[in-house]
Amino acid sequence: MGTSTALLTDRYELTMLDAALRDGTAHRRSMFEVFARSLPHDRRYGVVAGTGRLLDLIRDFRFGEPELQWLADNDVVGAHTLEWLAAYRFSGTISGYQEGDLYFPGSPILTVESSFAEGVILETLILSVFNYDSSVASAAARMVSAAHGRPLAEMGSRRTGEHSAVAAARAAYIAGFQATSNLEAGRTWGIPTMGTAAHAFTLLHDTEEQAFRSQVSTMGPGTTLLIDTYDVEAGAELAVAVAGSGLGAVRLDSGDLPALVASVRARLDALGNTATKITVTNDLDEYTIAALAASPVDSYGVGTSLVTGSGSVAAGMVYKLVAHTDNSGRWMPVAKRSANKATIGGRKVAFRALGPDGTATAEVLYVGTASPSADTGRQLTRVLVTDGEIDDSFTGPAGVSRAREHHAAVIAELPEQGLRLAKGGEPIIPTEYVA
Amino acid sequence: MGTSTALLTDRYELTMLDAALRDGTAHRRSMFEVFARSLPHDRRYGVVAGTGRLLDLIRDFRFGEPELQWLADNDVVGAHTLEWLAAYRFSGTISGYQEGDLYFPGSPILTVESSFAEGVILETLILSVFNYDSSVASAAARMVSAAHGRPLAEMGSRRTGEHSAVAAARAAYIAGFQATSNLEAGRTWGIPTMGTAAHAFTLLHDTEEQAFRSQVSTMGPGTTLLIDTYDVEAGAELAVAVAGSGLGAVRLDSGDLPALVASVRARLDALGNTATKITVTNDLDEYTIAALAASPVDSYGVGTSLVTGSGSVAAGMVYKLVAHTDNSGRWMPVAKRSANKATIGGRKVAFRALGPDGTATAEVLYVGTASPSADTGRQLTRVLVTDGEIDDSFTGPAGVSRAREHHAAVIAELPEQGLRLAKGGEPIIPTEYVA
Repeated sequence: MGTSTALLTDRYELTMLDAALRDGTAHRRSMFEVFARSLPHDRRYGVVAGTGRLLDLIRDFRFGEPELQWLADNDVVGAHTLEWLAAYRFSGTISGYQEGDLYFPGSPILTVESSFAEGVILETLILSVFNYDSSVASAAARMVSAAHGRPLAEMGSRRTGEHSAVAAARAAYIAGFQATSNLEAGRTWGIPTMGTAAHAFTLLHDTEEQAFRSQVSTMGPGTTLLIDTYDVEAGAELAVAVAGSGLGAVRLDSGDLPALVASVRARLDALGNTATKITVTNDLDEYTIAALAASPVDSYGVGTSLVTGSGSVAAGMVYKLVAHTDNSGRWMPVAKRSANKATIGGRKVAFRALGPDGTATAEVLYVGTASPSADTGRQLTRVLVTDGEIDDSFTGPAGVSRAREHHAAVIAELPEQGLRLAKGGEPIIPTEYVA
Repeated sequence: MGTSTALLTDRYELTMLDAALRDGTAHRRSMFEVFARSLPHDRRYGVVAGTGRLLDLIRDFRFGEPELQWLADNDVVGAHTLEWLAAYRFSGTISGYQEGDLYFPGSPILTVESSFAEGVILETLILSVFNYDSSVASAAARMVSAAHGRPLAEMGSRRTGEHSAVAAARAAYIAGFQATSNLEAGRTWGIPTMGTAAHAFTLLHDTEEQAFRSQVSTMGPGTTLLIDTYDVEAGAELAVAVAGSGLGAVRLDSGDLPALVASVRARLDALGNTATKITVTNDLDEYTIAALAASPVDSYGVGTSLVTGSGSVAAGMVYKLVAHTDNSGRWMPVAKRSANKATIGGRKVAFRALGPDGTATAEVLYVGTASPSADTGRQLTRVLVTDGEIDDSFTGPAGVSRAREHHAAVIAELPEQGLRLAKGGEPIIPTEYVA
């Protein structure tokens, strides 16, 4: 068991628990659902990420002595609730979309079925994970499309919280990035790591040449040399002079990229370094990547825009009680009627309807007792936790690989116009409710 | 010592170290500086946050057996560098702005003086912390101004990574928020926590009345009842009927707030509950808070916009080598010339110039050997770490309180128009370099 995750939680989850344990409703079987009311403004689809990471965090959602003592000292809940928390271990069932799959407005990304007590206290943690990770994955998938097969590396660790950085690297990899700069993401999730040198390394040395010689001496000529600390043209010449014909790549991190890339490519070719690659890393996002499609760029490094969800850093997912049993044990769908925040009660089973050629045509949600027809398409829901037992085929580095493969398969189902970058589009397929 | 933070780092920090240890430049004394080239587009000032949190993370920046083994297994660095990392403990000096202070373009928020080796590997962690925490604090300070003395609570944990949520609560508190919903922020940083119930609690019960009775029975009539699950007007009547004249507050989380707040206030007053407060929590940001200035709102809860920096989720801070010693031990200022990313080399000492009435007039940075004049104003730089010894008066819950008090004092120095919300403003005071 890792460090307890139990206090990464809003206080009101525990005060609701406290009152519900006292009045007896805490033990009602309940169904909570995670979904997004809409996609971020310029997106045609979203990408589910965070599931495997969440399962490990739920495993560590336990109240040990330090957590209980703090709750007692701060009068958060009463003695009876403290006892209940001391014994807490999630024993319910969780099903959800397979990590890496796509989502649309209303898609039931996760369904938690348990007592109200066991399920309500997971709300904050579940949403923190899905809102951040899915935001990054959704942005990453568009960058992957925009790159048209050229490899992308995630390098945004310094532009987000230090732990979010690890989650971002993981989400980007699931959505098709090739590597990350973040070492902890390499260790924890098995993601390939990359990176050679920053401007500071050149500045530390008395000359650019000494810096290049040192780097090539340590990492070999196949390394990537950063050539824009002083003058890009001179830097390119020097890089070839130092590393020779085996120079792996040069990196450009500033300036007017289309013009620079073209001139550096010409210079490298003129020197005979036709196999030396060019990687660019200067404040890229999906639009600037797309704008470089005709430039001889070999790979991209993306930072800020990726780890901040490219303008939409929280995916807008919510966790709602959609049904519970009454005193006789019968399931009752429930829904609130608040303005603009209405919910659709009841259990939902989700399918992606596919046309004859395998192209996605709709997100079909069967509500309550409605029975899916046999030929609806691909069922989206997987059981992730059964009576508290986590299915470990979804967790750890193996879960990441699996999610990445799944993403690659399902993004291929999207209609081609769904992959275009145009802003202001509608979801590329409609969400249909069958009651 | 806590969990190692050493791998929350970009790979290139370690590959630069590897090459610099081999070529001997790793031991050159170096000076790294954290600063932002500009403020986010619509801001007149920024707020420094993260310093105290960073100091603890630096304390835990140690390479233990698991980290070294992973680096060896993945050929990140050579054997000599692994040995050096095994013995690593930061032994340099760090000075910086006091946490909670304001910053402007070019403000040297942190200066790290150490060998190149010891300083370069801290880059990623330092920037992750300052970019996120300062982004949140900078947004929070504007919300506090917009609220004109009404209290604000941070409730955005579910809209950012689960660990970033704790940092966000801390940053918001430093910038003047009164409380947070996040329990871990309460435990780790001593921030007051708050929260009572969500819509799920009402939906769980057979009637709204049963939910209200349960909550009042457990938490007393002074609690806050959420009254918008079904019908706000009826909810307000019911809340008073259940809790009586001692009802602490009602919460509105949806709808057209100015109209709703006015009608709920009138209803509460008509029922004699003139002391019952109204708190609102529906997708607020600094602009909607300002728009509610004339409404009888008693307090605000802010989520998404706060933890995402209100449109600017990464503060744009960078960590640059600005000077190092040469082989004779003499300090050499260094600067790169990359397009749009030029830096100003050399050590900087920062003062906030103050007018006769104590109002800030300029950010004055003395570069290199320039001597500050005696009457420049308030010196901004504090020594935080001396030869590896962390000044613990800046860390932990006490450091948070100190930063919060400092922020309240220094924001009062700003010219009044600096606190207005108008978009597109220039920094409210200029940054002046004295060489």
